[in-house]
Amino acid sequence: MADERVVLLDHGGGGRLSAELVERLFLPRLGNPTLARLDDGAVLDNHGGGRLAFSTDTYTVTPLFFPGGDIGRLAVCGTVNDLAMCGAQPRWLSAGFVLEEGFPLADLERIADSMAAAAREAGVQIVTGDTKVVPRGAADGVFINTAGIGLVPQGVRLGGHQARDGDVVLVSGFLGDHGMTILTQREGLELGSELCSDAAPLNYLVERLLGEAPGTRVLRDPTRGGLGATLNEIAAQSGVEIELEERSLPVRPAVRGACELLGLDPLYLANEGKLLAVVPQEQAEAALAALRGHPHGAHAALVGRVRRAPRPRVVLRTTLGTTRLVDWLSGEQLPRIC
Amino acid sequence: MADERVVLLDHGGGGRLSAELVERLFLPRLGNPTLARLDDGAVLDNHGGGRLAFSTDTYTVTPLFFPGGDIGRLAVCGTVNDLAMCGAQPRWLSAGFVLEEGFPLADLERIADSMAAAAREAGVQIVTGDTKVVPRGAADGVFINTAGIGLVPQGVRLGGHQARDGDVVLVSGFLGDHGMTILTQREGLELGSELCSDAAPLNYLVERLLGEAPGTRVLRDPTRGGLGATLNEIAAQSGVEIELEERSLPVRPAVRGACELLGLDPLYLANEGKLLAVVPQEQAEAALAALRGHPHGAHAALVGRVRRAPRPRVVLRTTLGTTRLVDWLSGEQLPRIC
Repeated sequence: MADERVVLLDHGGGGRLSAELVERLFLPRLGNPTLARLDDGAVLDNHGGGRLAFSTDTYTVTPLFFPGGDIGRLAVCGTVNDLAMCGAQPRWLSAGFVLEEGFPLADLERIADSMAAAAREAGVQIVTGDTKVVPRGAADGVFINTAGIGLVPQGVRLGGHQARDGDVVLVSGFLGDHGMTILTQREGLELGSELCSDAAPLNYLVERLLGEAPGTRVLRDPTRGGLGATLNEIAAQSGVEIELEERSLPVRPAVRGACELLGLDPLYLANEGKLLAVVPQEQAEAALAALRGHPHGAHAALVGRVRRAPRPRVVLRTTLGTTRLVDWLSGEQLPRIC
Repeated sequence: MADERVVLLDHGGGGRLSAELVERLFLPRLGNPTLARLDDGAVLDNHGGGRLAFSTDTYTVTPLFFPGGDIGRLAVCGTVNDLAMCGAQPRWLSAGFVLEEGFPLADLERIADSMAAAAREAGVQIVTGDTKVVPRGAADGVFINTAGIGLVPQGVRLGGHQARDGDVVLVSGFLGDHGMTILTQREGLELGSELCSDAAPLNYLVERLLGEAPGTRVLRDPTRGGLGATLNEIAAQSGVEIELEERSLPVRPAVRGACELLGLDPLYLANEGKLLAVVPQEQAEAALAALRGHPHGAHAALVGRVRRAPRPRVVLRTTLGTTRLVDWLSGEQLPRIC
């Protein structure tokens, strides 16, 4: 018999069903002593003081489940990664669910399990949450917001405005895996069964990188808009030109093939388990070695350089030796990628 | 000519339009030096150390604009209040928007203005954010998640499990204003133009209360499910019985009249600018005076008492002298109240 339990409006009404959803579905999966107190918020010990990182993202990805992950894994990894990109050690997450009436509870259980697994992998706790239910048709299945708090170690000063003439640009591995996986899943394209989202928490990779290359100036995870959009943001924030070397860009054959077939550019495809780092030239080798020594950075590469320039821009030196502008997003628009 | 600017899918694509939305719409309204850095997260100074409060809520209210507030004011006040109920001084908020393609930008501007005003009123900063756009029909207008961080002063220990035999229950003012306002707006009922949401930040009221009644055991804001649901939660967490005195419950005549007409119970109507406090008997007068000395607590009242009991429950002594059980939500279900 099929599992016919679904989300009801009463699950979001603040009454007994709301309490049951939390106690029977969320707490056994995501629970910890802080969450289990069920107060209006979590109270957290931060006796050390110092700087905090704080970040948020809402996840609306469709389909909800895809090779390599699901919306729950994305929601945890995405916010963990945003904190890690601030140089922080992620510690605590909040989770806010918007559920559509009629959403299968079995899917919600699967998503909560996945969030719990990703949280363990990243070493973070989900300490506070909220669930809203909207009537059928007022949302599409489930949206998840996560916000997160991390602790920023002394001396770490990262920021998109710090790229300087002479710096190098590294990426931690293959580009476009997440974006191409979602696209092909959604369109029902049969473009090679090896396509798989890269969704992963990068905090331990960052810890390693900052240990070996403490002069790192900028860290970013190139999600929506891909490497192209993220580098344009950095170029604008720092007032520099960034030149990419096409031949150095790590792209899996399956993704490259799909891009050629579909007329897409891997530079604009979303990643959910990759970082880009702007590092001073003299720490480039140490940084690359640090990245490559971790499973999430095994295919790291030096892909570009930063230059002083009259106006911010990103350019690509193609394999043919020509140079072209890498503008802000110009590829196919793909909503609900994350 | 009507303002025909609307949200486009590209506003959420991570490209140039996304950047423009942030730079032209959000930053001028919500901006501060931290938000303006536009990094993946905010880095915040917390040199003092100590305990943090962390809370989140997603707002899906409909209609988006109503007498006394709008979804933006709710989104700021709701999370500020959740932090205040932990005894924390709210400091920093995140804001995550889910926008439906086609949503009028003029409405988004109005909402952002309202968030900015509420943040100023509460003395908090919106320091990090995220915007997603989903295709027409995949969400209903706009949903807003806010998460917040507050600092918990030394010595403050509040929690729903701390209500004890002999304690008294206070509420800070008239019950049900928000819930009845939303209900009548939504149903197009003409039940008196004086109905108005109570949405307000309660952090300064809490600061005052904890100063005068430092023994306060539990603070809660009775939002979804109203006082009835919130007291049932506290009774369950503390393992006590709570007896309410019907004649003491502060309810505006307009709300009481509408309740009678519609067959609703003000005990289950949502509030967005009220708190309930469980206070030891000996601090009851000091607590009431503290509440009444602040505009948001002018109509505070002592409404009930806590008793030891074989099983947790909430009961009401009616004006007729009879006693009835106040069960978990039993009134009309009203989704999207906040």
